[in-house]
Amino acid sequence: MSANPQFVTGVSSEWKTIAEGVRRQILAHGSDLMVVRVEFVKGAVGALHHHPHRQATYVARGRFEATVGGRKVILSEGDTFFAAADVPHSVVALEDGTLIDTFTPAREDFLASRG
Amino acid sequence: MSANPQFVTGVSSEWKTIAEGVRRQILAHGSDLMVVRVEFVKGAVGALHHHPHRQATYVARGRFEATVGGRKVILSEGDTFFAAADVPHSVVALEDGTLIDTFTPAREDFLASRG
Repeated sequence: MSANPQFVTGVSSEWKTIAEGVRRQILAHGSDLMVVRVEFVKGAVGALHHHPHRQATYVARGRFEATVGGRKVILSEGDTFFAAADVPHSVVALEDGTLIDTFTPAREDFLASRG
Repeated sequence: MSANPQFVTGVSSEWKTIAEGVRRQILAHGSDLMVVRVEFVKGAVGALHHHPHRQATYVARGRFEATVGGRKVILSEGDTFFAAADVPHSVVALEDGTLIDTFTPAREDFLASRG
């Protein structure tokens, strides 16, 4: 587990490209809660995947087609989805946009692959 | 515990005024993770408080003076703070702004006081 900083600014956290047109940065987190900002260019895809961590995602910018547990909706700024443990989920960016992904517990795999 | 909707839109969730110039809406959540959007008018205060829930907060809009565990910083859009269990925290809105508060576990007290 990394240190547990009380404050993490957007400009201080490195970006990591994770797919074509998709990059993320790890923001504030503790062992059981993590905030991650993910930027998408129009058309970029967060491929269908699942994990035991529970995830709640807030659309900070843009418009996304989100599929969670086989249900597909269009989400805009201010909208959210929740993925329970091991529920498959994916997104397609319908325009340039930003998601705020939050997880419990923290994504140790993201921390391990950073830097 | 309320139902566990996969999708919660910003327009569908009711707002609750919780202090002068401060209102919140509960967005996506499960029993162990909750996203809450909190809007502040300039000068409004989130008074110093603490709770056993871990909290990570993302600044979606505006500029805030945040105090966590006795440390005070200015946070702008894209910045975050983390409050571990029972760590006192407060904010002052330096301009109109929006925070995305995330909690583990979910704030059952928020659910109980809604609607």
